[in-house]
Amino acid sequence: MGLTTSLIWYTNTMLYSRLFGKSIKTIAEEKIISAQLLQQGGFINESTSGRYYFLPLGMRVQQKIIMIIKDEMDRAGGQEMVTPIFHPLSLWQETNRDKSAKYELTLLTDRRGAEFVPGGTAEEMFVDLIRKYQISYKDLPINIYQFSNKFRDEMRARGGLLRVREFIMKDAYSFHIDEEDFKKEYQNMWDTYKRIFKRLDLETTAVEADNGYIGGDYCHEFDVESEIGESRFLITEDGSYAAHEDVAEFNKHVETEHEEFKPMEEVEGKGMIGVEALAQYLKIPVEKTTKTILFETETGEVVAAVINGIYGINEIKLKHIIGSNELKLATPETVKRVTGAEVGYAGILNLPSEVRVIMDDSMQGRTNFEMGANKTDYHTININFGRDIEEPDQFYDIAMAQPGYTAPDGKQKLIEKRGIEVGNIFQLGYYYSNKMKRATYTDADGQIQKYYMGCYGIGVGRTLATIVEKHHDDKGIVWPAQVAPYLVHLIGLDLQDSVIKTKVEKLYHELLDAGIEVLYDDREEARAGEKFATADLIGNPIRLVISKRTEDKVEWKKRGETESTLLTDTELFNKLNLLINT
Amino acid sequence: MGLTTSLIWYTNTMLYSRLFGKSIKTIAEEKIISAQLLQQGGFINESTSGRYYFLPLGMRVQQKIIMIIKDEMDRAGGQEMVTPIFHPLSLWQETNRDKSAKYELTLLTDRRGAEFVPGGTAEEMFVDLIRKYQISYKDLPINIYQFSNKFRDEMRARGGLLRVREFIMKDAYSFHIDEEDFKKEYQNMWDTYKRIFKRLDLETTAVEADNGYIGGDYCHEFDVESEIGESRFLITEDGSYAAHEDVAEFNKHVETEHEEFKPMEEVEGKGMIGVEALAQYLKIPVEKTTKTILFETETGEVVAAVINGIYGINEIKLKHIIGSNELKLATPETVKRVTGAEVGYAGILNLPSEVRVIMDDSMQGRTNFEMGANKTDYHTININFGRDIEEPDQFYDIAMAQPGYTAPDGKQKLIEKRGIEVGNIFQLGYYYSNKMKRATYTDADGQIQKYYMGCYGIGVGRTLATIVEKHHDDKGIVWPAQVAPYLVHLIGLDLQDSVIKTKVEKLYHELLDAGIEVLYDDREEARAGEKFATADLIGNPIRLVISKRTEDKVEWKKRGETESTLLTDTELFNKLNLLINT
Repeated sequence: MGLTTSLIWYTNTMLYSRLFGKSIKTIAEEKIISAQLLQQGGFINESTSGRYYFLPLGMRVQQKIIMIIKDEMDRAGGQEMVTPIFHPLSLWQETNRDKSAKYELTLLTDRRGAEFVPGGTAEEMFVDLIRKYQISYKDLPINIYQFSNKFRDEMRARGGLLRVREFIMKDAYSFHIDEEDFKKEYQNMWDTYKRIFKRLDLETTAVEADNGYIGGDYCHEFDVESEIGESRFLITEDGSYAAHEDVAEFNKHVETEHEEFKPMEEVEGKGMIGVEALAQYLKIPVEKTTKTILFETETGEVVAAVINGIYGINEIKLKHIIGSNELKLATPETVKRVTGAEVGYAGILNLPSEVRVIMDDSMQGRTNFEMGANKTDYHTININFGRDIEEPDQFYDIAMAQPGYTAPDGKQKLIEKRGIEVGNIFQLGYYYSNKMKRATYTDADGQIQKYYMGCYGIGVGRTLATIVEKHHDDKGIVWPAQVAPYLVHLIGLDLQDSVIKTKVEKLYHELLDAGIEVLYDDREEARAGEKFATADLIGNPIRLVISKRTEDKVEWKKRGETESTLLTDTELFNKLNLLINT
Repeated sequence: MGLTTSLIWYTNTMLYSRLFGKSIKTIAEEKIISAQLLQQGGFINESTSGRYYFLPLGMRVQQKIIMIIKDEMDRAGGQEMVTPIFHPLSLWQETNRDKSAKYELTLLTDRRGAEFVPGGTAEEMFVDLIRKYQISYKDLPINIYQFSNKFRDEMRARGGLLRVREFIMKDAYSFHIDEEDFKKEYQNMWDTYKRIFKRLDLETTAVEADNGYIGGDYCHEFDVESEIGESRFLITEDGSYAAHEDVAEFNKHVETEHEEFKPMEEVEGKGMIGVEALAQYLKIPVEKTTKTILFETETGEVVAAVINGIYGINEIKLKHIIGSNELKLATPETVKRVTGAEVGYAGILNLPSEVRVIMDDSMQGRTNFEMGANKTDYHTININFGRDIEEPDQFYDIAMAQPGYTAPDGKQKLIEKRGIEVGNIFQLGYYYSNKMKRATYTDADGQIQKYYMGCYGIGVGRTLATIVEKHHDDKGIVWPAQVAPYLVHLIGLDLQDSVIKTKVEKLYHELLDAGIEVLYDDREEARAGEKFATADLIGNPIRLVISKRTEDKVEWKKRGETESTLLTDTELFNKLNLLINT
């Protein structure tokens, strides 16, 4: 025995009989096809929920994806480095992110009592590193990035690599003298991401998105369209506008009818579910109804969000406006306390001053509109600004966009799509340099200035799973050649026949000598059908077969195509070289 | 501005002016030279104690070390994969390692209440993976390995990368049908390690060592001799025997004089410090004295370790014999309780039976020897087995070897050396397969059998630091070419002169086109002396200089040599190609 056999195998080659984590015939059925195929094909295996082993085949694919990302990041001027995985908690406290991100972080205390968090993102770590140096405007811009394990204390993991608790992320951070310089880099990273995903055979849409606990003013997700994607976004037909539902804007275009003020009236209307029913009952157009939703923040503040009844509230937009990390619907008790009524009858007439009112701009210029009366079972109609309630100094956009709404351009309609977020780019601005000490550089005049920042992430495992989502058929994975575990899947049939066996091994060595990556299915006991099924499941781009029937030739078939051809050795290597060099 | 300049740089090249983490003129002085040079040269930077950033230069070196290890592991039949970083605590409980390793592990609880430990080593994880598959004798042997972050909750970190709390380790695990097959792999890994360290220009000694909390019966450290090494080992002149002080054996060769039994006697002897003073006072040879040391285990058991007075007790050997994870000297209270005397007068006469006696084989065959009398200020002389105390059924080796002692071969003397442990290989045997359920395979007869295991580690960061320890001079690091951040350090002097600048940039591009890794010091403001000092500190193998004085040629100097020569372009590329291809 011993680990070496008469056939040497190096990094580029593998004997299927020796492959660790060979394909498994049956696994518990997964709803997500990439989870199914990657586990069945022997690419990954789950440890605990949301934490995966990468098996030899999965390692190779992941490594190739990493190399493509690295290549493009280096070309774009990035420099690879790496931070420790355990970040001192004190740094997260410095930016208050221990609170804003708290549910996704896990605290860890070492035996000396030092507190750490396993890194989710690493903005503080990079700022903390840079402030150890005396940097000047000549050192800027800087774009530094790492591939490293990231941790998210997700409440629910999804099947496979799409939403996990541990994963490799490429995270880059850029530092600039000012916004103008940053904007060039934002475009540079945008273009770089487009190139990266194109090289990975993924078509992406850059979608405006919410920045979550990362901070900053704006950001874009790179989404791959998919039915199973968790990102719902709205896009115009020409793609000129694309935004995640969390942040999507639309043209509200509410007619401001300059009606005569009618007398305000309290009307009974018990248990109406929905504005349509209410409007019908009150005999007013739906556009005259109003939604007033009460929320509570983490500090106990009560907020009334007010919007034209035809729209819904977007809680993410609302959170940003009020600067809250956590927002939840007010409890029935709170509603009763501040409005005096049961849930369903809130308005803003006679609300106590402790309640902060945020009004959507769909409220602007309205006349004779309805609101809850803050009295159980009652609604007030014909409310008017100036006469009945004060017009606020400022209106906001807190409306949830919906498919079919008019895009911000005022012309096109918004279309709904679902996507998998494989990357994102964030403007951070002065978010971190304002909060962290000495996040500064010396300018040309010797003055200390805060630097302007951005950050840029790609989830490597999720990208891998997304490639499978987009590149598979009913038999298995159809890897793009640049990320396939091996270029060639070599099958020997009739291997009991020593003449055939010698032929296959000769070809195996020739491929090896030519530096071609090959997985050789050398099993003697497996039937042809089983070998073909394995090849289809694993999904390497080129299947080569040698058997009694192929005589002096080799059968060539591309994965994903049905046609196969018999080639001579010379023809084979010509075709392979052509494939490698294009 | 923007990140791209007129000079493109890719993965293989870098402009010094853009390099992130440039060399730092002064840093707090480090006792350890590798810590000093790696930080000063801009390779690493400390986050919190024992946790380091790897900066772009350090990343490159680490990556090259990893590629060399990977290449040799793959050649040797290993397959790369990776486990999650957070191991479920339940697995460590299954082998009881949550207790044996507890001080080096940190516990972490996620928000669902699941408990994890950040991995120190990954035996349980690999066994847990393999038992998900139905493996048979045909699948064995398996050697799977990973490069991944490991965590040790060290009480004290040392400067630089020698003893840290987070580091990348290559850890491999092998699985075998039996011991015989394992032994081949142990030799295979031994040879592979020798090759790896040779390729890294490190001379290693394979030293028998203690397995700590890893388990198993034997293991070897690969030590690089160094004054600052933490491993003290004993070796014969010809190197045929080398063992860590924790486990080193020696030829005790105690004369067994068949003397007449003399009458046993209690003698007063207060406050004698050391056996020499005692022997002198009692007027007996030192060889007649005995040391009896009392220990307590984690379960509260009291153990008396008994040895000829000329030797010292090796607590590691003792721990293994009694199967204890934690052993400490008995407190004065315990000594008093079990012996009835103050510390310093323990013997085994009249010890209560609760005390477990472990006798070193240097006690075997003695006559008329001394021991503490278990009575404050008193010693007993002329003790004899059979007459005064019972001869134990078994003697053990619990003696601490010392330089100058005779080696186990009975001929050579042991020499003391210090070394840095860069790698280790462990026989694990059935240690894990006995403790973990279903750590089995099906044999040729269809019977379920436990598999036999080994494991094999290399600390990547420590190896990197060790290379610096062995390859530096008073000016900086002298990297072996195969792990240097760049092959060429190109210096342009007089860059204000546009003719010179054009020449340097032309060469830079030629090097780039030839695929040669080059770090180009393009600073216009830096003086020649500063540029030379930077080049020496960073330590790339070839320094090329173009200045007014070099005219149409290029100055070539190898790092570590003083002589420089002027070369034409053709001569330069010939020399570089020669260097790369040998």
